Amino acid sequence: MSQLQARRPKDSSVEMTELVLPNDTNQLGNLLGGRLMHWIDIAAAMVAMRHSSKVCVTASVDEINFFEPIKLGHVVTLQAMINRAFTTSLEIGVRVLREDPLNNSSVHTSSAYLTFVAIDTYGRPLKVPPLEVESDEEKRRFNEAALRREQRLQHREMVKKLRADGAHSS
Amino acid sequence: MSQLQARRPKDSSVEMTELVLPNDTNQLGNLLGGRLMHWIDIAAAMVAMRHSSKVCVTASVDEINFFEPIKLGHVVTLQAMINRAFTTSLEIGVRVLREDPLNNSSVHTSSAYLTFVAIDTYGRPLKVPPLEVESDEEKRRFNEAALRREQRLQHREMVKKLRADGAHSS
Amino acid sequence: MSQLQARRPKDSSVEMTELVLPNDTNQLGNLLGGRLMHWIDIAAAMVAMRHSSKVCVTASVDEINFFEPIKLGHVVTLQAMINRAFTTSLEIGVRVLREDPLNNSSVHTSSAYLTFVAIDTYGRPLKVPPLEVESDEEKRRFNEAALRREQRLQHREMVKKLRADGAHSS
Amino acid sequence: MSQLQARRPKDSSVEMTELVLPNDTNQLGNLLGGRLMHWIDIAAAMVAMRHSSKVCVTASVDEINFFEPIKLGHVVTLQAMINRAFTTSLEIGVRVLREDPLNNSSVHTSSAYLTFVAIDTYGRPLKVPPLEVESDEEKRRFNEAALRREQRLQHREMVKKLRADGAHSS
Amino acid sequence: MSQLQARRPKDSSVEMTELVLPNDTNQLGNLLGGRLMHWIDIAAAMVAMRHSSKVCVTASVDEINFFEPIKLGHVVTLQAMINRAFTTSLEIGVRVLREDPLNNSSVHTSSAYLTFVAIDTYGRPLKVPPLEVESDEEKRRFNEAALRREQRLQHREMVKKLRADGAHSS
Amino acid sequence: MSQLQARRPKDSSVEMTELVLPNDTNQLGNLLGGRLMHWIDIAAAMVAMRHSSKVCVTASVDEINFFEPIKLGHVVTLQAMINRAFTTSLEIGVRVLREDPLNNSSVHTSSAYLTFVAIDTYGRPLKVPPLEVESDEEKRRFNEAALRREQRLQHREMVKKLRADGAHSS
Repeated sequence: MSQLQARRPKDSSVEMTELVLPNDTNQLGNLLGGRLMHWIDIAAAMVAMRHSSKVCVTASVDEINFFEPIKLGHVVTLQAMINRAFTTSLEIGVRVLREDPLNNSSVHTSSAYLTFVAIDTYGRPLKVPPLEVESDEEKRRFNEAALRREQRLQHREMVKKLRADGAHSS
Repeated sequence: MSQLQARRPKDSSVEMTELVLPNDTNQLGNLLGGRLMHWIDIAAAMVAMRHSSKVCVTASVDEINFFEPIKLGHVVTLQAMINRAFTTSLEIGVRVLREDPLNNSSVHTSSAYLTFVAIDTYGRPLKVPPLEVESDEEKRRFNEAALRREQRLQHREMVKKLRADGAHSS
Repeated sequence: MSQLQARRPKDSSVEMTELVLPNDTNQLGNLLGGRLMHWIDIAAAMVAMRHSSKVCVTASVDEINFFEPIKLGHVVTLQAMINRAFTTSLEIGVRVLREDPLNNSSVHTSSAYLTFVAIDTYGRPLKVPPLEVESDEEKRRFNEAALRREQRLQHREMVKKLRADGAHSS
Repeated sequence: MSQLQARRPKDSSVEMTELVLPNDTNQLGNLLGGRLMHWIDIAAAMVAMRHSSKVCVTASVDEINFFEPIKLGHVVTLQAMINRAFTTSLEIGVRVLREDPLNNSSVHTSSAYLTFVAIDTYGRPLKVPPLEVESDEEKRRFNEAALRREQRLQHREMVKKLRADGAHSS
Repeated sequence: MSQLQARRPKDSSVEMTELVLPNDTNQLGNLLGGRLMHWIDIAAAMVAMRHSSKVCVTASVDEINFFEPIKLGHVVTLQAMINRAFTTSLEIGVRVLREDPLNNSSVHTSSAYLTFVAIDTYGRPLKVPPLEVESDEEKRRFNEAALRREQRLQHREMVKKLRADGAHSS
Repeated sequence: MSQLQARRPKDSSVEMTELVLPNDTNQLGNLLGGRLMHWIDIAAAMVAMRHSSKVCVTASVDEINFFEPIKLGHVVTLQAMINRAFTTSLEIGVRVLREDPLNNSSVHTSSAYLTFVAIDTYGRPLKVPPLEVESDEEKRRFNEAALRREQRLQHREMVKKLRADGAHSS
């Protein structure tokens, strides 16, 4: 029961900083999109586990845009924070900044929203603690999370309808 | 110019099969969502480069749902295919199947849509060859790609509006 | 018992596609031979586990030739297929193609033959299902597998004899 | 010249958070000491490059103690901050916390002090900007860095002397 | 010219020791065959580069047998030594020992023979220094290398003939 | 009891050779300090486990100096040897040599001293076998290990005192 006590967003927020090494890049020295997605997922998973005190697995990732190229030698900062807790799932927002440490310029390159589900060792969903929001910023995130959830459901309906009208699945 | 000759979807399609090793899992032996996203991105990048004969970078990834858990020892098959070519960008669809080789069950666990941009060595966008679609299935994918593109633009507008109404960015 | 029902080669065949990243290359941008061998082994292991529905471990790898260099940014396709099932072991063939996606040239760079053994959790060998071959191509592979097995045994005898004539082991 | 303007510790400080995955552990599920040292080095390198706006390489690492075991599934937070800038080198302090996200306990497991040197593309040392310290805490760290530097020099002398007295080098 | 001065086997021999970590194993905790092949290739590449003072790439790997299982936590020792230098190629032998450090038992698990070619930055073959053998053991290895080379050529002929008799290539 | 029989340094010594690959370097092609520390830790862990026949974890690492840069394509040799066994801990010395295989120059770049503790599966310390030293070199190392241990304790006292005089911990 104490595990279902409401928690604040800052109780579980994570800052993760990574240096882009040759291992992470393509032949032109650009950070691979998939490598960044991997970091985004790890940062969000840590927030989900901290908030819920349970092992959490990725259930979905909303659209991610990569506005700015990230290059070999850049520093990538990921700021991950819980936006809303539903019954057994949580929405986590991750903000990605890239910085060229050689000239200290820093820009926002992506934002991502991920949904995680808390599970037991058999993979069955577990209840998660509610989220207590206070500041205007936290409330805005909390409300946007519900809108995104609704949009996700609408989107899935649209895809299903398109599939039903068309031939077979993608 | 010959590089801008129309090509067929099957000219660039990719099948990628991966074995889930301890390296790819969390403490309960579940495949990490971010690891799967990394494979999805690599599979799609190979399609984009094959179709365009150019280096391509990830511009955006649509919502990805992880319907079914994938575990240590499973075989993951990724089928990646180009859905549509725009002026300098391409939409690639990736279908993910997971199979437990010890009982030969195979299920569809995720579908993903990614947009790539072809670039030169300075990162400037380059024109890509048009896509020639023939079968009903190929035409359905071609049309759906335009709908998804429109939805992406609407979604970005909605996010911008929410942000403008609210305080500061996520 | 149903696990020992005969299966067809196409029931377990695998296509694996990999993009050569900086991580996989030496200081001149050539794919490391050992990295390719690792991919060959994984592709073959997936075929062996799919055919047998059991965990399989590598027992031997026949001579592998690397006819053509593979470079950073190339796409490597591995086609793995079972050639023959013996009592507790299987021979898998892997064909390696490399393609420069920037000019769509594709060449055959290596072929490899690997033997796997199906094992239980104590490492003891387990019986594997027989292989049912139909096409001429499948029959040719089936017959060649027996020749290669014989050659392997002869080769081991020759090595043993050389050692016995000489001083101590390599 | 503007690159040699004094900077504050907070201008370059880094927080790095890592999830301990199977890849990072030994056969009992303990984080490998060397893996933690690798993270410590990366976190410190990012601070050194941010402060100096130059590529920096590790010159030395002071004694590191691992007071508490870190296990699979734990969250490791590394807080890295510059303590002092010398002519071409910098001392960076890294504080390591480990947390079990399943019960939110957090403990301090190690502290490390690393010296980095800023270099040009030929490996020659470059001048670094001075550090401007204000708070008592920053001043304490600044003074301790000088003491550690002195101790390092004494330590090297002692080792040299021991070697000279003894036979050949370690 | 001084680079083509004869060298002794011991001038370039390598001992490489690796600890089997979770990253290197399958779901039963067995070292992956491909991971071991990767280590074998790296060990041999270092010998080839040391002997030739040139960048070398893998040209072929003879049959490798995995006589004994290697498990998580074992220590793997690879002893690599040049057996013979031909005009632009070298044969390297690698002997693999595995040891359970918890009971100090050590067994020979595999031997491998690899051929490397020295190349320039355009991938063209370069002459390598001759090998000077003295001991009986070195002479035995030198002679066996010629036999293996001959067998490799015969083997390729047999494969070609089988292919010509049959339908298309594997 | 037989596990606590005295052993000689050479019974557990390890030689580990690594090729510096792109994966291991920063954007100027320098080996990352943290990567080298990782190798040092693995080499020393193997010695500790061989001497004690038990799983061992890193307890502390003494100051490490990186005297010479190590570059992409270099060969790194790590020679690890036990210097002294205490009740439940051991001091291991690791000597690092780097060699450019293209010109066969070899230099000593670092020396490191690490302390390991033997543990059971609950993480509790276990007694380790005594070390039997014979040669002058072994005796010198044995005596130096005691001096280093004393210096470590003094150093910790100094740090504690500085902390007590100052405000809060680093």
